[in-house]
Amino acid sequence: MDDLHSIGMEKGLLYETIISTENEAGEPNAAPIGVICKDKREIVLYLNHATHTLENIKINKNFTVNITHNPLIFVNSTISDLDFNYFKKYNDKFYIKEAEAFFTATVESVKEVEKEDNIGKTTVNIIKANVNDIIIKEKQFTPLNRAIFAIIESLVYVSRIELVDDNTRNIYLERINEMTRVVNRVGGLDHKEAMKRILKYLEDK
Amino acid sequence: MDDLHSIGMEKGLLYETIISTENEAGEPNAAPIGVICKDKREIVLYLNHATHTLENIKINKNFTVNITHNPLIFVNSTISDLDFNYFKKYNDKFYIKEAEAFFTATVESVKEVEKEDNIGKTTVNIIKANVNDIIIKEKQFTPLNRAIFAIIESLVYVSRIELVDDNTRNIYLERINEMTRVVNRVGGLDHKEAMKRILKYLEDK
Repeated sequence: MDDLHSIGMEKGLLYETIISTENEAGEPNAAPIGVICKDKREIVLYLNHATHTLENIKINKNFTVNITHNPLIFVNSTISDLDFNYFKKYNDKFYIKEAEAFFTATVESVKEVEKEDNIGKTTVNIIKANVNDIIIKEKQFTPLNRAIFAIIESLVYVSRIELVDDNTRNIYLERINEMTRVVNRVGGLDHKEAMKRILKYLEDK
Repeated sequence: MDDLHSIGMEKGLLYETIISTENEAGEPNAAPIGVICKDKREIVLYLNHATHTLENIKINKNFTVNITHNPLIFVNSTISDLDFNYFKKYNDKFYIKEAEAFFTATVESVKEVEKEDNIGKTTVNIIKANVNDIIIKEKQFTPLNRAIFAIIESLVYVSRIELVDDNTRNIYLERINEMTRVVNRVGGLDHKEAMKRILKYLEDK
C-alpha cells in the first residue's frame, strides 16, 4: 500500500501542491498550498485566514492534495478560480484531472496561531491531517520541492559574484539570504547542509 | 530503446545537470551545466571559455550528462572539485555514482560566439552533441527544470503584492521580471504561456 514516502515525499520537507476542496454549495475550489510531510500518512498545512480553502476544510473536515507540475493550474488557481472542467470526482471528493497523483486527507486538528512576518501580523491556521487514499496517475512523477532550486539559484550567484560590482554583489548576497530562508523552510537536512557550505564558502573568500 | 523524451526531457527545455568529463591525465571532472534538449537524441550546451569541462570536451569529443537532485553534488562541484569517490566508470566514461540517471554524448560540433550580458562580453562555446547510451538507475526521477519554480516564486509575489509598500512592490516586480527571463530561457510553451498570464494579470490590476 502506498504512503507518502513511497511517492517520494520525505519527512520534514514542504511540497508545493494544489489543494482541492468543496464548498457548502457543492462547488469545487483549488488553491496552491504548501504541504509539509510529517510522517508516512500525516501532513501539516499552514493556511491564512479568510480563504476558501480554510472555510471548506472547516466545513468538510477533508480535502484533496494534488501533485502536479502543470504551470497553468498553478497560475489559474492563484489569479482566478480554476474552471470547473479541471475537476473530477474520486468517490465523493474533487481532485484535479491533470494531476500526476493525488491523495485524500481527513482533518485531525485545526489550531489558530498569530504569526508575524515582514508584511505584518496575521492569523495562521495550522491544519494537521491524516492521509487516506493515494492515487498515482502517472508513473514518472516527483512531488514539487523548491529546495534544490533555491540551491541552484544560489550557485548561479556564487559563480558570478567575483565578476560583478559591489552593488550587484549586494543584490546577489540578499538573494542568497532569501534562498537560505527558502531552504530552511522547505528543505531537508541535505539541502540545509548544502546551503551551509555555500554560506561558509562565501564567508571564507 | 530509451531516448530523451522517454526520460522526461522535452524539446526546447533546458535542464540543470552535472556534466562529467575526463582530462588528459585520465582524471574525472564534474560541473553543473544546463543542457538543452534539442531532439530525441540531440542536445546543446553553452560553455564558458577556460573551464575544465570545455577543455576536456574538446580533447575527448565526449562527455556524460548526469541527472541528479542531490544538493551536495551541485554545491561541491561548483565551489570545489568533486571528490574522486563520487565517480564510477560506465564502459570507459566517468559518471556520477549517485545520479538517478545518466547518458553519454558525442560532440558533433563546437562553435565559438561572442555574448554580451549584464556582466560584460564573454566568449561562449556552443556544443552540439548526440546522445548515446541512456542509463536509468532510479525508476522514479524527473530531470531538473527550473521553469515551474520560477512560476511558483512569481505567484508568491503576486499573492502578496497588494499587501506591501511601494518599495517592496518594486522589489517583487523586479524579481518577477527576473523569473520571466528564467522561464523564457529554460521553459516550454506552457511555462511561457503561464508567465504571460501572470504579467497580464499584473498589468490589468
